[in-house]
Amino acid sequence: MTKIHHHSVQIYYEDTDHSGVVYHPNFLKYFERAREHVIDSDRLAKLWNEEGLGFAVYKANLTFLDGVEFADICDIRTTFELDGKYKTIWKQEVWRPNATKAAVVGIIEMVCMDKQKRLQPLPNDFMQAMVKL
Amino acid sequence: MTKIHHHSVQIYYEDTDHSGVVYHPNFLKYFERAREHVIDSDRLAKLWNEEGLGFAVYKANLTFLDGVEFADICDIRTTFELDGKYKTIWKQEVWRPNATKAAVVGIIEMVCMDKQKRLQPLPNDFMQAMVKL
Amino acid sequence: MTKIHHHSVQIYYEDTDHSGVVYHPNFLKYFERAREHVIDSDRLAKLWNEEGLGFAVYKANLTFLDGVEFADICDIRTTFELDGKYKTIWKQEVWRPNATKAAVVGIIEMVCMDKQKRLQPLPNDFMQAMVKL
Amino acid sequence: MTKIHHHSVQIYYEDTDHSGVVYHPNFLKYFERAREHVIDSDRLAKLWNEEGLGFAVYKANLTFLDGVEFADICDIRTTFELDGKYKTIWKQEVWRPNATKAAVVGIIEMVCMDKQKRLQPLPNDFMQAMVKL
Repeated sequence: MTKIHHHSVQIYYEDTDHSGVVYHPNFLKYFERAREHVIDSDRLAKLWNEEGLGFAVYKANLTFLDGVEFADICDIRTTFELDGKYKTIWKQEVWRPNATKAAVVGIIEMVCMDKQKRLQPLPNDFMQAMVKL
Repeated sequence: MTKIHHHSVQIYYEDTDHSGVVYHPNFLKYFERAREHVIDSDRLAKLWNEEGLGFAVYKANLTFLDGVEFADICDIRTTFELDGKYKTIWKQEVWRPNATKAAVVGIIEMVCMDKQKRLQPLPNDFMQAMVKL
Repeated sequence: MTKIHHHSVQIYYEDTDHSGVVYHPNFLKYFERAREHVIDSDRLAKLWNEEGLGFAVYKANLTFLDGVEFADICDIRTTFELDGKYKTIWKQEVWRPNATKAAVVGIIEMVCMDKQKRLQPLPNDFMQAMVKL
Repeated sequence: MTKIHHHSVQIYYEDTDHSGVVYHPNFLKYFERAREHVIDSDRLAKLWNEEGLGFAVYKANLTFLDGVEFADICDIRTTFELDGKYKTIWKQEVWRPNATKAAVVGIIEMVCMDKQKRLQPLPNDFMQAMVKL
């Protein structure tokens, strides 16, 4: 398991719904943003454009423990690990400011796919970059 | 377990991302749309405006088995059951046209909350409406 | 100018923000959904996949006159006209149930582009289909 | 007219659509994020929660000049001015990295509303904060 990666997300109007808190699917967005910072967006763009490979979410397991509100600046905490040659498992949490527990907890399994949506082994340079984190 | 409720979702530009398929958090949107049709949006609006009660997703467990594409008209299949006085459990699936298996499978647990985000028992008339489905 | 095309949009949780009404960029989504029904999504998908052509919004001019609320079922009213060989101009409105005026009014200019984002004349079969509307 | 305010927006998967570039309504989101940083989100939250006042977009005039791509880090450039006691006019632009012209240009008119959606004069402390920018 890697050390914790922190990514900051500010909650804007676009994130909330009429119940007054963040609309629940949006937490999957924040988790993805954080993963893109861990993996590096430029590398992801290059992998897609040059090698035709992308990462896809295979499973997502989410628990919603607290409502997150407009203007909150949240800390997205991310760790991940390799699970064989095909799968990475990410533990990700949303922390509100001054919170004593996570507002949302997610376990995300990701795989690597080509443009024909066929499963591919994780790219070697990605694996090596993983080891350094 | 109730009989299967069907809700149709057409995939527009807004639903896709640059990988060419539906952006994965959007499936949680389709599941919610379908639940709102099962529960009835007017009843939900009334429950919120008059009694200050709303439904919130407590857990979501998603498996992504196939990419869904622009212009697909998908069938969202929904069943649900009561789990005690506080919780409903929804099994929801996304089916692409002519598919032989679901593209996305979700198990969603929902609870009822007041405007202070406190857990509340499921409303009686909701429970009674459930029995009829 | 074509006759009025009607497209129905139900307002879900995903559409609203914490101010209690529809988040304003979403009206551009509803306008696009309606345009896709006018042009026909399958034809759009084919145009993109086989000829590498897509429609892009060049200008959008929006006026917001009323807030639209959760559970509203709105009527999106669309007319459009050709403006030379390169441009179509769409007048689109959002009408709430039982309203006496539009809640949102949009004038949208669209052009046709190839995958290198170069301007292209409107496809002939599209032009011919226009005449029939 | 105020001096230019800069706000940085990174383009993630969620921002793009299957045509490969940013889905056009999303630029309204980036403009709003930038305005929230100009006005200050905490002040906006307080204004809403304590005084029941919010800002609403009355008009938006958008021109789309270039497609914005995944992994671009864009500069949102914002200036604004008061137009009487009721209206603020915002000029906002999206600049891609190393661009020589804006990718998107918007003119946004905003007004202040209470929770019954009635027009209200701009709050005094907001007006005074404006002068200092």
